[in-house]
Amino acid sequence: MKIAIVGATGIIGQAVYRLLSQQHQVLQLSRTQGDYLLDITSKSSIEDTFKSIGALDAVICTAGSVAFQPFQSLTEEDWQLGLNSKLLGQLHLSQVASQYLTTGGSITLTSGIIADHPITAGLSAATINGALHHFVKAASVELPDQQRINIVSPTMVTESKKQYQAFFPGFMSVDADKLAMFYMRSVMGVETGEIFRAYG
Amino acid sequence: MKIAIVGATGIIGQAVYRLLSQQHQVLQLSRTQGDYLLDITSKSSIEDTFKSIGALDAVICTAGSVAFQPFQSLTEEDWQLGLNSKLLGQLHLSQVASQYLTTGGSITLTSGIIADHPITAGLSAATINGALHHFVKAASVELPDQQRINIVSPTMVTESKKQYQAFFPGFMSVDADKLAMFYMRSVMGVETGEIFRAYG
Repeated sequence: MKIAIVGATGIIGQAVYRLLSQQHQVLQLSRTQGDYLLDITSKSSIEDTFKSIGALDAVICTAGSVAFQPFQSLTEEDWQLGLNSKLLGQLHLSQVASQYLTTGGSITLTSGIIADHPITAGLSAATINGALHHFVKAASVELPDQQRINIVSPTMVTESKKQYQAFFPGFMSVDADKLAMFYMRSVMGVETGEIFRAYG
Repeated sequence: MKIAIVGATGIIGQAVYRLLSQQHQVLQLSRTQGDYLLDITSKSSIEDTFKSIGALDAVICTAGSVAFQPFQSLTEEDWQLGLNSKLLGQLHLSQVASQYLTTGGSITLTSGIIADHPITAGLSAATINGALHHFVKAASVELPDQQRINIVSPTMVTESKKQYQAFFPGFMSVDADKLAMFYMRSVMGVETGEIFRAYG
């Protein structure tokens, strides 16, 4: 398979790359480095990059930012950060990717455990991750040519535990290498419209 | 109780008004007419109006627009319509309303059955309604002073069946007067973080 990972420089993207590149041709995409540059906050950047790449069997997105602030502190700019990056970025990526996917090709997005389990300052993340869950379910019935779409919802990743564990008291972490298995399952399996909860 | 209905001119808003005004002081708010004017797409408009009103025991929102287009036809503008109106409009309204609610006061938002059940051209509605479900759940644990927040997710309303039934084949409709009961339950009950599915 020919697979593109958007957000390939991150901890999750790197783990997915290590796993899938053992058997497949995997292109690494990010804002700053890799085989192709791509900024998910710009739909035209996504369109330009996919036009350069051409046909693909799978597109994986592990990119996207969200602001962490309590209820009353979330400003319009905080909301827009997550809406433009993690939400619209992945929605636009899905729309563009679908135009280049082969028959039966797949799109795999990334949300996060905060969709289901609120944490301190996690309101924007809950809202945006939740939106992505519902998007994937609804998009799965519209995709052409037996294309599939799923989403992986990770808990805190073990490799970034030191940075985030104060926000996730009592939460299990998931090792990046184990987390990568859920992306492989989405890419190589037959499921569609699924939320793969990688909760450790 | 002193209650404000945002979107009071609509079919749902009018039914909620008829039910709640039998026992309570109910203010009708909308973009174009009513006791106060308010445009949910402008946070400053929301802030100005609530400052004029002062303390409230409950705020209900039955306003919000979303674009209906198939997967590949949804433009950036189509996404922004729903994000700015139905999603951010209700998020901002919740943030502002909370500042004026009395102890134990409530916020009741509106989503829609498309969150759970995809329909033709309903991808944006599914995404935005889903976001609202997760927002309400996460916000419910952050609200101060025993304030509560719930959301009503209506199926097609009987009174607008002629206009929409082609999009909802086999779906039951719910009469507006019956639907209004779910808003009453949210306002007068003790539940919080709940999705009231009014599926007929």
